[in-house]
Amino acid sequence: MDPTSSYSSAAEALEALTRRVADFPEEGVLFEDLTPVLADAEALAVVIRELSAAARDFGADMIGGLDARGFLIGSAVAYDLGIGILAVRKKGKLPPPVLSEEYSTEYSEAALEIPAEGIDLRGKRVVLIDDVLATGGTLVAATNLIERAGGSVVGYAVVLEVKALGGRERLGGAPLAVLGG
Amino acid sequence: MDPTSSYSSAAEALEALTRRVADFPEEGVLFEDLTPVLADAEALAVVIRELSAAARDFGADMIGGLDARGFLIGSAVAYDLGIGILAVRKKGKLPPPVLSEEYSTEYSEAALEIPAEGIDLRGKRVVLIDDVLATGGTLVAATNLIERAGGSVVGYAVVLEVKALGGRERLGGAPLAVLGG
Repeated sequence: MDPTSSYSSAAEALEALTRRVADFPEEGVLFEDLTPVLADAEALAVVIRELSAAARDFGADMIGGLDARGFLIGSAVAYDLGIGILAVRKKGKLPPPVLSEEYSTEYSEAALEIPAEGIDLRGKRVVLIDDVLATGGTLVAATNLIERAGGSVVGYAVVLEVKALGGRERLGGAPLAVLGG
Repeated sequence: MDPTSSYSSAAEALEALTRRVADFPEEGVLFEDLTPVLADAEALAVVIRELSAAARDFGADMIGGLDARGFLIGSAVAYDLGIGILAVRKKGKLPPPVLSEEYSTEYSEAALEIPAEGIDLRGKRVVLIDDVLATGGTLVAATNLIERAGGSVVGYAVVLEVKALGGRERLGGAPLAVLGG
């Protein structure tokens, strides 16, 4: 980590700093660990700036961040744009009442939840943010949750995309921004 | 959520927007759900500004965010200060090699992990950020991890404190900032 380093784009920072580990969490999967990217001041800054620009272009007036790694990038984007972040939680983390939506990933069946009171999503234009677009299952479930609460998802912004899993095709009409990979 | 609302302090925003639910996750616990606070643009802004001011005062050159709710505030603080965020993960989320540290909370035994390569923490001055200080078990475990990697924890900043659980006394010498509660 050279403190004088700088990156002209998020893609360049991702190429330099992503920790790639084969066969995790299971055989045949190449895991791309973004921890070193986010821990680097200049890499974090360029990643957030590019995601913010995408979310602004999509007309976001709220960010939706996916538990847990989407939180790491979503809140900085929301703060940067002067808007709020809706934390879309994994099942069981939030007290009742909640709205819940089941989904499946490449690894498991699960559910996402948001509070059913205390936040008014009606008319909100939400951009969903996550670290990696894989099957798209979590992003689709989060989209359904937000729409059930009266909001709309006007775009998606992710750091990396695993193209072979076809998640992009499942997202429907809203635009998608991908920084690298 | 009134778009014209504003808050003179984080404590005022927390008082207005925190969702308090009794007997979650177990009987006798009052759960304070910050989701509506973070989803509100002005409340998020004042929370992040106050945490950033504390982390700057403590001399942070890196933020440590605790999985998962600490991510929601830590990354915005890191971005605001122009520094990086070290994501301190729950066990099993990161590919090997990792440094691991066991801890106990009021609910369970668990472990925290950080990558053992790809990030140089030697000499880093880290401020740890989380949503709620309860028993302090996770913050102590995160502190041990960072020190094992060669960094130091120069302060702690949390949104809320559950004073009855005595976490403050477990944190040792580094200063603690608490926004509300």
